[in-house]
Amino acid sequence: MSEDIAPTAVDEAGDALATSTSEASLHRSEERSRAIEEQIAKDASGFRMLTGDRPTGHLHIGHYFGSLMNRVRLQDAGVDTYVLIADYQVIADRDGTGPIAERVTSLLTDYLSIGIDPGKTTIFTHSAIPALNQLMLPFLSLVSDSELYRNPTVKAEHEATGGRPMSGLLLTYPVHQAADILFCKANLVPVGKDQLPHLEQTRVIARRFDERYGRVDPAAPVFPQAEALLSSGSLILGLDGTKMSKSKGNTIELRMTADETAKLLKRAVTDSDRHITYDPVGRPEVSNLLTIAGLASGRDPRAIAEEIGDGGGGGLKKYLTEVLNEMLAPIRARRLELEKDPGYLDDVLAAGNARANQVADATLAEVRAAMGMSY
Amino acid sequence: MSEDIAPTAVDEAGDALATSTSEASLHRSEERSRAIEEQIAKDASGFRMLTGDRPTGHLHIGHYFGSLMNRVRLQDAGVDTYVLIADYQVIADRDGTGPIAERVTSLLTDYLSIGIDPGKTTIFTHSAIPALNQLMLPFLSLVSDSELYRNPTVKAEHEATGGRPMSGLLLTYPVHQAADILFCKANLVPVGKDQLPHLEQTRVIARRFDERYGRVDPAAPVFPQAEALLSSGSLILGLDGTKMSKSKGNTIELRMTADETAKLLKRAVTDSDRHITYDPVGRPEVSNLLTIAGLASGRDPRAIAEEIGDGGGGGLKKYLTEVLNEMLAPIRARRLELEKDPGYLDDVLAAGNARANQVADATLAEVRAAMGMSY
Repeated sequence: MSEDIAPTAVDEAGDALATSTSEASLHRSEERSRAIEEQIAKDASGFRMLTGDRPTGHLHIGHYFGSLMNRVRLQDAGVDTYVLIADYQVIADRDGTGPIAERVTSLLTDYLSIGIDPGKTTIFTHSAIPALNQLMLPFLSLVSDSELYRNPTVKAEHEATGGRPMSGLLLTYPVHQAADILFCKANLVPVGKDQLPHLEQTRVIARRFDERYGRVDPAAPVFPQAEALLSSGSLILGLDGTKMSKSKGNTIELRMTADETAKLLKRAVTDSDRHITYDPVGRPEVSNLLTIAGLASGRDPRAIAEEIGDGGGGGLKKYLTEVLNEMLAPIRARRLELEKDPGYLDDVLAAGNARANQVADATLAEVRAAMGMSY
Repeated sequence: MSEDIAPTAVDEAGDALATSTSEASLHRSEERSRAIEEQIAKDASGFRMLTGDRPTGHLHIGHYFGSLMNRVRLQDAGVDTYVLIADYQVIADRDGTGPIAERVTSLLTDYLSIGIDPGKTTIFTHSAIPALNQLMLPFLSLVSDSELYRNPTVKAEHEATGGRPMSGLLLTYPVHQAADILFCKANLVPVGKDQLPHLEQTRVIARRFDERYGRVDPAAPVFPQAEALLSSGSLILGLDGTKMSKSKGNTIELRMTADETAKLLKRAVTDSDRHITYDPVGRPEVSNLLTIAGLASGRDPRAIAEEIGDGGGGGLKKYLTEVLNEMLAPIRARRLELEKDPGYLDDVLAAGNARANQVADATLAEVRAAMGMSY
């Protein structure tokens, strides 16, 4: 639920297993992700993916390389994709909603600019899907308070608030995420390695629902067991070599102009060695800029380093500015176009919400039937 | 949330103030309740009341004298009445829903039998009102985890489960109750003396919503401050002199026959003194039966005791059986009639749910507008 890197709408489980990922378990997940990728390449029709972001600011290159590119790839491969704008989660750890409508619109504009296609992908907001939110109630009956407290993400997010009392919304966040994933019966959630245990709470809730409340179709549980799809996108640092964060001003937002991008990159941190080499351990700042340049250009960072050679930090920044602005140019052009058409943006969100509501209403009806609450 | 005495859909607050009721505060509440009753007698049009029950069994005379009679009185006085069948709260502290549909129907039949008029009163179930349940999300952002734990009702209910892990649904129960009261903007909640602090969490949430998320109409908060209406209905004990409880078999259910009632009353506990007197401290069992007879007949229990005199426990039980069966006869007749017409019962609940949904949708739209989430 970080505002700096796109969250994946999943969370840590309460089970002991879930608080850490063993080597063996990581290996199994990697194997499984490879198998899923192979299956998607052959026939993606059996997959539904849920992913999303909190609308707390504008998307930047960290989001782009870390998750957005991957979403577009999976969407285009034929995975039925749901992208959640998690507006209620904005208030899990802050006192107001802020300029929430503008942020939702900005996020939506970013999505469409980078290639998320509303004809293929359902983009929706939490606050517009009552039946999704209602799933919180039965799901809350399936977890204990201590499971909620043991959740590593809840712990980490709470520590990040610096002594703010924990809100009931933050404490119950993993249950709300289960509702996000299960309302549309997603069976695929893209996560990074460190987020591998996050899906477990959702899987536990799906299993317990089946055990405790039963089924409508005797042959199959109401909810699938969602699987993690390990994201291959490498993690990049901020332009100063520390964690990338909008609030630190050490990143490039997708909506920035080419000039703003050039200015920010000029201030990027390098080191005193004029000869550019790719050495992530010894020269993290320089290597990070090379990584970004590699991602933007589709080239090997080592080859870029060799090419720049004695060009120094200046040469590296010049090259990075070029390739990054080149990569972002069509995205930015599309963004400017979209900004001129707020009616279209409203229509896209309304259509996404309508579709999500249809799916959520059907799932809720099934949940009520399984629970014997059809009256 | 007891299954033995009708809950009032309200709960203890997290504030220190709310964990006990001082004499002075009780006095103020009594004064205020009297003033409200006077206002209702003059003009009830400004009042909307929320009350309800968990569908965990059949209603009995404890519910009837303790709260149902009062609901009908207020409904007939013109108070806009909402009666909630709290089906989701059934699973806050148990592993399954049980025969939930039958229990909901039984509760509904009891309501109509005792005079709750679906033409005046909105009867609805939690699980059918998604927009009500969605209010949980913004409301959860307004309370801290420690406020939830400090809640005396949550504590008491958890202790009553005998070591069962506390579910997330039980922990967040006061927030769900706030949603019950506030979705329809009820300004009146009937409570007993010991439940006086229960409303405080709802009042706190309403106040905090106003402070943190603001208003749609600058002149008035989105939610009213709900007030307690102290119930004058006296608390009666079970037929054995202990707390009345369906599971103990020490009560008379509304749906029982006159014969079943007579049989149960024959087994009621009295004492060895043949001369009947009304002495609640010295002779609690006998006095309790006199109290019930008084409530059923509308007479003073002391006068009944004098009349029975040396008639002993047998005479008392005979009289009680007579007056209780007489009072219950029209209710039972109506109940039998209603049971023959399940289609009508379905229609009543469907109409109540439709009305509650309309109200909930309007409130949710206002909540989203206040929070800047209108998109």
